Amino acid sequence: MNYQNRQWFYVKRPEGRVGDEHYALRESELDDNLSSNEVLIRARIVSVDPYIRIQQHERNTYDVPHPLGIVQRAGVVGEVVASASPLFKQGDWVSAYSGWQLYAKCHHSELTKLNPDAAPVSTALGVLGMPGRTAWFGLMEAGKPRPGDTLVVSGAAGAVGSLVAQFGKRAGCRVIGIAGGPDKCAFLTDTLKLDGAVDYRAHPTLEGLQSALQAATGGVDVYFDNVGGMVTDAVIPLIKRRARIVICGAIAQYDGGLDTPDLAPRFLQHMLFQRATIQGILARDFVHRMDEMLQTVAPWVKNGEIVYQETYVDGFDALPQALNSLFEGKNLGKLLVRV
Amino acid sequence: MNYQNRQWFYVKRPEGRVGDEHYALRESELDDNLSSNEVLIRARIVSVDPYIRIQQHERNTYDVPHPLGIVQRAGVVGEVVASASPLFKQGDWVSAYSGWQLYAKCHHSELTKLNPDAAPVSTALGVLGMPGRTAWFGLMEAGKPRPGDTLVVSGAAGAVGSLVAQFGKRAGCRVIGIAGGPDKCAFLTDTLKLDGAVDYRAHPTLEGLQSALQAATGGVDVYFDNVGGMVTDAVIPLIKRRARIVICGAIAQYDGGLDTPDLAPRFLQHMLFQRATIQGILARDFVHRMDEMLQTVAPWVKNGEIVYQETYVDGFDALPQALNSLFEGKNLGKLLVRV
Repeated sequence: MNYQNRQWFYVKRPEGRVGDEHYALRESELDDNLSSNEVLIRARIVSVDPYIRIQQHERNTYDVPHPLGIVQRAGVVGEVVASASPLFKQGDWVSAYSGWQLYAKCHHSELTKLNPDAAPVSTALGVLGMPGRTAWFGLMEAGKPRPGDTLVVSGAAGAVGSLVAQFGKRAGCRVIGIAGGPDKCAFLTDTLKLDGAVDYRAHPTLEGLQSALQAATGGVDVYFDNVGGMVTDAVIPLIKRRARIVICGAIAQYDGGLDTPDLAPRFLQHMLFQRATIQGILARDFVHRMDEMLQTVAPWVKNGEIVYQETYVDGFDALPQALNSLFEGKNLGKLLVRV
Repeated sequence: MNYQNRQWFYVKRPEGRVGDEHYALRESELDDNLSSNEVLIRARIVSVDPYIRIQQHERNTYDVPHPLGIVQRAGVVGEVVASASPLFKQGDWVSAYSGWQLYAKCHHSELTKLNPDAAPVSTALGVLGMPGRTAWFGLMEAGKPRPGDTLVVSGAAGAVGSLVAQFGKRAGCRVIGIAGGPDKCAFLTDTLKLDGAVDYRAHPTLEGLQSALQAATGGVDVYFDNVGGMVTDAVIPLIKRRARIVICGAIAQYDGGLDTPDLAPRFLQHMLFQRATIQGILARDFVHRMDEMLQTVAPWVKNGEIVYQETYVDGFDALPQALNSLFEGKNLGKLLVRV
């Protein structure tokens, strides 16, 4: 049997924002001839994540750049359509890294079987997947939260930030979230029950934002940074003795700023005076400890103790625009595309 | 018996460079009436250190600001003139934190007895004192040098940097020093036997300096930073995977730049991509481990295995100007004032 495949090929490096013009949508037939241990999957939910935009840069960042002319790589949740593996059967739910295409043949070692009764399968792309791992190990390993610490999270209404904030509350921290706009800030205080929220859009100058953050925090023990840019410039002078700064993302700089870094006040003297630490962390460094994270976090998810907001976009065609929308700061929680 | 004392009082906060106008030289008589366990010392060598300039700022840095109207605090090596302590007798050499004055009465708990046969007493203000402790623990604890690592040291001809560079060589690192001018660079390669030296004064632009550093290092595993400013801007983009950046000083910014920070390219994305760490360290955090450092380093000093360059200025009157000269980058190694 043949399947009508659709694939987004990454064909042009963006300079600023990413859009349809950097991709080519191609249709083709895919047969179901499988080698031993191969599995044919049909994607159902495709993940768009900020790191994708980093990998599109021409220069080396944490990886060689995403090659041009291949299907855009991405995390996917899908169903098994056909299997030549003893480990998977038709109808199984799996997560894979098969990218922006409807159908893919994968070696069974690339697949993780999902249990839809344990948690919604979409969580494999969010709270129980890469973003959850980033939040958990970034906070616990680099942030080292202690009860009573003041934890500040930028991008706090996002996929990673909203989890960091909740993990921080569970660790006994006083948590202040930074997000853009009153709706997100209401989400932080009303839904996530954080101790405070600062709307960076309400404070367009560095001085104003810093004053608001000083008033809301009284000083910062742990700063978990997803955004970089002016928000981070405003937080760093507020660090307290032996503060830990976790650099998880710099979304403010992803569309252009990575290649032509903008200027900001030098701040290393604050690191010196406070004997503070900055650490860059990536989810991939903790892949081998995924079980450890799931053991702790999965029961919380099952018991409904963790809020994991998902924002859905419908349609395979919408993938490039969905990726771009991450940089407009419009979405709450994890952005997913139903395909 | 009375002693003719001379004291430099700190009376005015400098805006930029520090000089005589920020001090008042006062003469007075000091009697030799001592309370129980008190010791009268005559300073012989007075230390001038970059941290003194930090403490002169009006705002809190790592300490409350140095108060106005008191004798300038500083490390001192002196001789015991009279003693009411069972622990010290006339003629003993001691180190103290008695500041810029010829005579001082100290409680014996503030004094450390020095053995002139074990090492020159001046080393208590340098390699076997605060600068040595800074270099040793900063490199070992925060820098975590491994054999084969490329270690880059800024301010490498200075009191701390020249020790860091040598400790790094002993730890098996390839060490590249950054210093200002051909004489200092020759000192780094010829006397300290470093693997390379980069003269930052020969590269007045960020791009030029970065190219020179890239060529000399091929990438940086450990960066021990004493200077901050453009030198650091040039090094950070060259960090390798899991690099460690030790912020020990920011001398480029001490005269003015701490209060009105200048602008530099944002660099936190490099920390992210390389999963690197920045840590601020201060000598005071390792006071309780001084014995541990001396146990390792003192034998090296005794055996002549460590080069500790000293630059002497003569005369008590010269103290403010000697402090200022630290920021002109003219001195090799530890700057000391004979009084």
